[in-house]
Amino acid sequence: MISLLPLPGLPEIKPGDDLAGLIAAACQSAEIPLVDGDVLVVTQKIVSKAENRLVPIDPTVGHKPLVEQESVRILRRRGDLIISETKHGFVCANAGIDLSNVAEGQAALLPVDSDRSARRIQAALEHKHGVKVAVIVSDTFGRPWRRGVTDVAIGSAGLRPVVDLRGTNDALGRELQVTEVAVVDEIAAAAELVMGKAEAIPVAIVRGVDPSWFGEGNVHEDLVRRPDEDLFR
Amino acid sequence: MISLLPLPGLPEIKPGDDLAGLIAAACQSAEIPLVDGDVLVVTQKIVSKAENRLVPIDPTVGHKPLVEQESVRILRRRGDLIISETKHGFVCANAGIDLSNVAEGQAALLPVDSDRSARRIQAALEHKHGVKVAVIVSDTFGRPWRRGVTDVAIGSAGLRPVVDLRGTNDALGRELQVTEVAVVDEIAAAAELVMGKAEAIPVAIVRGVDPSWFGEGNVHEDLVRRPDEDLFR
Repeated sequence: MISLLPLPGLPEIKPGDDLAGLIAAACQSAEIPLVDGDVLVVTQKIVSKAENRLVPIDPTVGHKPLVEQESVRILRRRGDLIISETKHGFVCANAGIDLSNVAEGQAALLPVDSDRSARRIQAALEHKHGVKVAVIVSDTFGRPWRRGVTDVAIGSAGLRPVVDLRGTNDALGRELQVTEVAVVDEIAAAAELVMGKAEAIPVAIVRGVDPSWFGEGNVHEDLVRRPDEDLFR
Repeated sequence: MISLLPLPGLPEIKPGDDLAGLIAAACQSAEIPLVDGDVLVVTQKIVSKAENRLVPIDPTVGHKPLVEQESVRILRRRGDLIISETKHGFVCANAGIDLSNVAEGQAALLPVDSDRSARRIQAALEHKHGVKVAVIVSDTFGRPWRRGVTDVAIGSAGLRPVVDLRGTNDALGRELQVTEVAVVDEIAAAAELVMGKAEAIPVAIVRGVDPSWFGEGNVHEDLVRRPDEDLFR
């Protein structure tokens, strides 16, 4: 069994805030203290705010120049929508730039290195608060072919992002086909189910994840598909 | 809080089996009786087996002719891999044809109409077993740009597949940008976290889902993007 626990009570996050400390305090207040083996899912928005990735938007030109500045390759344009590959290798709308839940006239860029952001939160929780958790930084992306957005992992620490079950026998003893499961994306999606969009719950605790998924790895190296192995770029 | 509960104890599914009855019995045996408001996630594989979507594979030509027969449009080919649009409008590898966990020399095609499959299970649970649940039929798809597979919904009953939060105010009182969340895909992904691939857990119960997400809708009409609104086809 896995439990998805929304974490209430976090204050509005400001540049320079100690996210790990605020999260640990909110967990205490909410009487859901973190335990070893928990996975903490933290939305990009508060990571970007804590890391002061807020930039002003020039009202005369809008956010488009920012999108182009944050992109290394434009894949598609339609009206105001730009689908591009960001500097980090993510393919998403508007280079992941966030205009909601930030002050008017501002935008939140993606963290410079969201795996590092996850590692920092993880390390602080371990060394200052004595708890060994994994951390995922999540963001909300659209996808081709299917309507609606889902949350995915843009950074992680302490988990193997893709768990390779190839070669494991299936229930009939036959070797399984490709089943490299992107567990960090599934955990990010699961966490979103308890966050809500308008209720300002930017952190969820995922408790009960298979211990064998814990280990080395990060989103940038293990989950982002290289252009040369990608059929849709 | 949401709980993800794997359902153990289902027998090997055979053509003609009453899935709703077997699931209700397994819930009783496992002492996790279904309650109103649960979401039941059922993998495509056992739905296809119960609906006798098993077909023989001609060993001289392999599964490729089947893939072409089940496709309406081929998007990409690389080696043995075909990415195509199925008759149902899904874009996925090998037309969703499943070679694992079926007998040697056989393949499992997708259900003819997996929304109908979900509705049947839902209706049987309501009328024969007295419990009002929603049902998702899930399958494992790859995706462009990111490595690894994740589970998505290929059929649903009793849920609004995409929950539209556009126009809801964000925490700062500003109108939110696009946030049509594909909740059935997120629930399918969440359920996969407790299913495992090799342990033959083909059903999970997702308990605690926001009651406002229950309602009319299905994957085919609400989640599958039409070719004319799609930038990647």
